[in-house]
Amino acid sequence: MNNTKHFRKGDEQPTFPDDGNYRLYSMRFCPFAARTHLVLDAKNIPYHTVNIDLKDKPEWFFTANPLGKVPALQLMDKPNSPFIYESLLISEYLDEVHPQNKLYPSDTLAKIQEKIWIERFSSIATKFHQMFTDGNSQWNEIQNGLDAFEGELNRRGTTYFGGEKPNILDYSIWPWFPRTEALDVIFGDGCTFSDARFPKLKKWYKSLLENDAAVKKFAYPKEAYVKYYKSRLAGNPDFDVLVQ
Amino acid sequence: MNNTKHFRKGDEQPTFPDDGNYRLYSMRFCPFAARTHLVLDAKNIPYHTVNIDLKDKPEWFFTANPLGKVPALQLMDKPNSPFIYESLLISEYLDEVHPQNKLYPSDTLAKIQEKIWIERFSSIATKFHQMFTDGNSQWNEIQNGLDAFEGELNRRGTTYFGGEKPNILDYSIWPWFPRTEALDVIFGDGCTFSDARFPKLKKWYKSLLENDAAVKKFAYPKEAYVKYYKSRLAGNPDFDVLVQ
Repeated sequence: MNNTKHFRKGDEQPTFPDDGNYRLYSMRFCPFAARTHLVLDAKNIPYHTVNIDLKDKPEWFFTANPLGKVPALQLMDKPNSPFIYESLLISEYLDEVHPQNKLYPSDTLAKIQEKIWIERFSSIATKFHQMFTDGNSQWNEIQNGLDAFEGELNRRGTTYFGGEKPNILDYSIWPWFPRTEALDVIFGDGCTFSDARFPKLKKWYKSLLENDAAVKKFAYPKEAYVKYYKSRLAGNPDFDVLVQ
Repeated sequence: MNNTKHFRKGDEQPTFPDDGNYRLYSMRFCPFAARTHLVLDAKNIPYHTVNIDLKDKPEWFFTANPLGKVPALQLMDKPNSPFIYESLLISEYLDEVHPQNKLYPSDTLAKIQEKIWIERFSSIATKFHQMFTDGNSQWNEIQNGLDAFEGELNRRGTTYFGGEKPNILDYSIWPWFPRTEALDVIFGDGCTFSDARFPKLKKWYKSLLENDAAVKKFAYPKEAYVKYYKSRLAGNPDFDVLVQ
């Protein structure tokens, strides 16, 4: 994983070899950007990462991408090197253009049903965002939302939502789960992602962390996560926690 | 267009012929549900509509669809008649399963770019929802958002975003524009969707209204819209404004 510093206003735009590889505009702790890293890595697609300081974005980022959002993927292999954004749309693009290790089901109904599950996760993602922004735990509400995912994984009876290997649902929701490791440190002892309530999801989370190459490449130590979120809750996010 | 009454708690579930046709759970003034009506009608797909009172949903609606959201499409031609929801996912399903009058571009990049435009509209949709809920105009902010669509339509140089006929971008954003007809009545004279600022979009809106069969089938008179939104702003939405 690329742990270079996050570019900010005044920084010179980085240059890359003229190799036609994608350029991914990212932020190291953004779960939406993580989706794109996971999909690219699950397909072994080479790319260059440009980490952006989201509190102080460089001017050249807006020039290239007027919305100034991460993740944004610049397609260097297309005329005028267009940007695409919205994490789920980037995933869909990559899965259609790079058919190796297909992540969406090929059957239309199965594909739409998997996308519906991903959409169902978005309210959980919003609650995680809010609690790690204002410091007020919404862990109870999040657990209520996760119950449906625990039930669905149990119903499928497989290690991953995708079966014996992860699919787009696995990669699209995984990025929020490392946050559960820091819950107790930041929000106190009552906040735990417990084996008792989520036996399948906990096994799923750990199995991805231990066995999946793309997740292993992306993952970072709990300490880094705690440090980043403490800095963010203090009003001064330290995006460069992982920079060596 | 089906203008039957909106079913509420205590009402008996409607029955339909066993014809395998889709059942669309809708609300007559929901712009998200309107997307599904437009796509079904643009493709001449037969369906049954079940209008739901969103303030007092019938129990049988939750039994069938635990999230209780509209639009929801029940696929009577599939085993166990599953529901699918999220308006854009329903559109995608219908366009893949019913290839007549394709609404999404066939090229992957063009398709994703069109979906990005639809996503860009979602913040405008949210502002419309808020202003017609709390009564505080956000028309200035909405116009700022619409400037990009005006510019894009001008750049394309065609009547519709889809070219000489509407595509999924046209049908996905059109449902919010009838609201502009009632702006001045509800929010005062300063709120108008003006020819001066939006020459292309106004022509586009009117052209769909006058020439497109799906839009003509769906559209309702300005008076109905004003009446519905006045009732809603008064805290007691009258979903059945159009019922004969």
